[in-house]
Amino acid sequence: MTVSSSDAPEFGMTTHRIEALTDGIFAIAMTLLVLNLSLPEMETELTQTVELHNLLIGQMHKFYIYALSFVLLAIFWITHHQQFHFIKRTDHKHLWINIFTLMFIVLIPFSTSLAGDYPKEWMAKFFFDLNLFILGMLFIWNWVYATKGHRLVDRSLDPQRIALGKKRGAVAPLVALLAMVVSLINPQFSSFVYLLIPILLSFPHFRHK
Amino acid sequence: MTVSSSDAPEFGMTTHRIEALTDGIFAIAMTLLVLNLSLPEMETELTQTVELHNLLIGQMHKFYIYALSFVLLAIFWITHHQQFHFIKRTDHKHLWINIFTLMFIVLIPFSTSLAGDYPKEWMAKFFFDLNLFILGMLFIWNWVYATKGHRLVDRSLDPQRIALGKKRGAVAPLVALLAMVVSLINPQFSSFVYLLIPILLSFPHFRHK
Amino acid sequence: MTVSSSDAPEFGMTTHRIEALTDGIFAIAMTLLVLNLSLPEMETELTQTVELHNLLIGQMHKFYIYALSFVLLAIFWITHHQQFHFIKRTDHKHLWINIFTLMFIVLIPFSTSLAGDYPKEWMAKFFFDLNLFILGMLFIWNWVYATKGHRLVDRSLDPQRIALGKKRGAVAPLVALLAMVVSLINPQFSSFVYLLIPILLSFPHFRHK
Amino acid sequence: MTVSSSDAPEFGMTTHRIEALTDGIFAIAMTLLVLNLSLPEMETELTQTVELHNLLIGQMHKFYIYALSFVLLAIFWITHHQQFHFIKRTDHKHLWINIFTLMFIVLIPFSTSLAGDYPKEWMAKFFFDLNLFILGMLFIWNWVYATKGHRLVDRSLDPQRIALGKKRGAVAPLVALLAMVVSLINPQFSSFVYLLIPILLSFPHFRHK
Repeated sequence: MTVSSSDAPEFGMTTHRIEALTDGIFAIAMTLLVLNLSLPEMETELTQTVELHNLLIGQMHKFYIYALSFVLLAIFWITHHQQFHFIKRTDHKHLWINIFTLMFIVLIPFSTSLAGDYPKEWMAKFFFDLNLFILGMLFIWNWVYATKGHRLVDRSLDPQRIALGKKRGAVAPLVALLAMVVSLINPQFSSFVYLLIPILLSFPHFRHK
Repeated sequence: MTVSSSDAPEFGMTTHRIEALTDGIFAIAMTLLVLNLSLPEMETELTQTVELHNLLIGQMHKFYIYALSFVLLAIFWITHHQQFHFIKRTDHKHLWINIFTLMFIVLIPFSTSLAGDYPKEWMAKFFFDLNLFILGMLFIWNWVYATKGHRLVDRSLDPQRIALGKKRGAVAPLVALLAMVVSLINPQFSSFVYLLIPILLSFPHFRHK
Repeated sequence: MTVSSSDAPEFGMTTHRIEALTDGIFAIAMTLLVLNLSLPEMETELTQTVELHNLLIGQMHKFYIYALSFVLLAIFWITHHQQFHFIKRTDHKHLWINIFTLMFIVLIPFSTSLAGDYPKEWMAKFFFDLNLFILGMLFIWNWVYATKGHRLVDRSLDPQRIALGKKRGAVAPLVALLAMVVSLINPQFSSFVYLLIPILLSFPHFRHK
Repeated sequence: MTVSSSDAPEFGMTTHRIEALTDGIFAIAMTLLVLNLSLPEMETELTQTVELHNLLIGQMHKFYIYALSFVLLAIFWITHHQQFHFIKRTDHKHLWINIFTLMFIVLIPFSTSLAGDYPKEWMAKFFFDLNLFILGMLFIWNWVYATKGHRLVDRSLDPQRIALGKKRGAVAPLVALLAMVVSLINPQFSSFVYLLIPILLSFPHFRHK
């Protein structure tokens, strides 16, 4: 957190700034997800009870999709901070990897709304999966770029930790890839594939000893 | 606020980060509440004065619900900071308790909109109450988990203060439970039950001496 | 900005936290203002050019109201930081003055939308004026409460500066009061009364020597 | 990041505060862009697949405009931080230049929505171009004002770096001016003119050696 001016002597951009913008964008994207849950307004009072019941039940899949996207964004947010805990500097290319990452984070509420409104459409589900796949690839690229030859991390950073970061980072895009295949075969089930992400990440193989 | 790298030597996540995301999400959730107040656009100018008057009067309950949710979110925000004033470290489980807490904070604007649009429906009010109940339970779980055996707090933290935090934290979920019962009997009155929260919390019994 | 734990030994709440939440809420409220400018979607391409022209012209008053609210929020934001530059501590009552202030900041996008949609309705304009009046009163209350007997400010704070803060703080609510009167007589002109705020505040009488 | 009270001894406003508000507003504006991508809800299930396909294809131009606005906002955000890396103080006029800058950042989601909804209308494209032109001019004004006689920057700041900042800052408004001309002639192509901004800025002539 201590931002010395030597962090950005020529470039004028610190990792602290990227983190602040990213935290803000994560907070807003996570909150906007819930706007998809908006109910249509009822017209007559008589039918309200029945309709409200049906509406809330009819929204079950939306609630699941909302909770899923929220948890996936939280996992990416944790990954972001674990990466930036070790990334000490930034450069021009690294900055733009991060900006493209933000672009696909911001797209998540739209993809979620698409997948929630059209649960049986392969195209909607595929769009959602593709968004997550690209996001996952950008996160792993961020880590590979920053750690290659200890480019933006401390020289003392343990190679095992670098490898663990790559292994953990590969989980999300691989699961998204699997979900893309399932979306083409049976779109209604593809959202459940993502439950693999928290399950796999909690395996001892993917955790720091 | 000083974030030394020793705060998160293995885990890469500091309480500072959770606080930043939480502040952002509280700020957005509190601001989104007001989007529920949006008025339908009038079509003819002639009827505007009459209709605007009726609309604003018709929104009285919505204004109350908006102000209520805002104050409840503010109380949870204060609780969050009082807890994190003493919580010095985080771990994997603690992080996820906090992420689920955020998920139910983000749901508050939706629950508020539901309760504001269907003031006479027990289901709408019950949904709102349930949201607050779960939120309250997550806050008390956060405190119990962090303070058990001084797990994430300073060893020097006074046991009386830990007990006070539990006592204060129990107020919101207990009042929400009572509101759930009232919602089943008379949904129109359940929102007023929440006035008990600020009243109870200002009792000397619930305040630090 | 340095937040020592002695800032909040018993109360667990620092001015730093209030400032962070307030900055977030100001940023969101200022951005939500622009959502009022949304255009209805055209149906036929033929009529688009004519309609778009009419729509943009028809939005002139909305653009003025948007810019006005943005500038007024900016003035309140500056006032907030000028006050908190000197306020070093907080207490329970002070915290709640600030939470009610936030509630009326969050209401500004709704009031602005009301005043923009119904430019000729005294009720809409009066609602907008009332929102600003209450906001102005809360800001002056915040300053009076914090400086009374140097309650929450440094003992060394110059009494002249305290008096200047009150004088500057009185401008907004007094102008809002005048606008309320104009709204009752001629609602279309009441928005222009607010131009007095930046004019008056730039007078040497209201500026620090 | 260390904010000493000497930064704002009389004025009560630090550059740190402007940066925090600006980061927040950038984060929200960048996230709101995606709200323009919202799809109309389908009514019959039968026609969903066909319609969804058409809708997503029909949104291609919107996706381009969204990505373009996101990248342009990111470029302005980078410029902002490069400027504030060197700007150490603020004054009354500088503060207001920044507030007007924020006003035109907040307008970008509206301009983008206008340009995305009416891709063939010169007026919509011209509005978008004008927004970017004014924004670019405000950024260059900010830099010229701050560096004139080293007004708000360190005395030691290299004149070559000041000149480079002006040169880089001139790119966006000049390209926006060109886009305005293209919008009058052929509105459908004007959005592509902006690709010149990242291309030009990556030229060695515009980069620090």
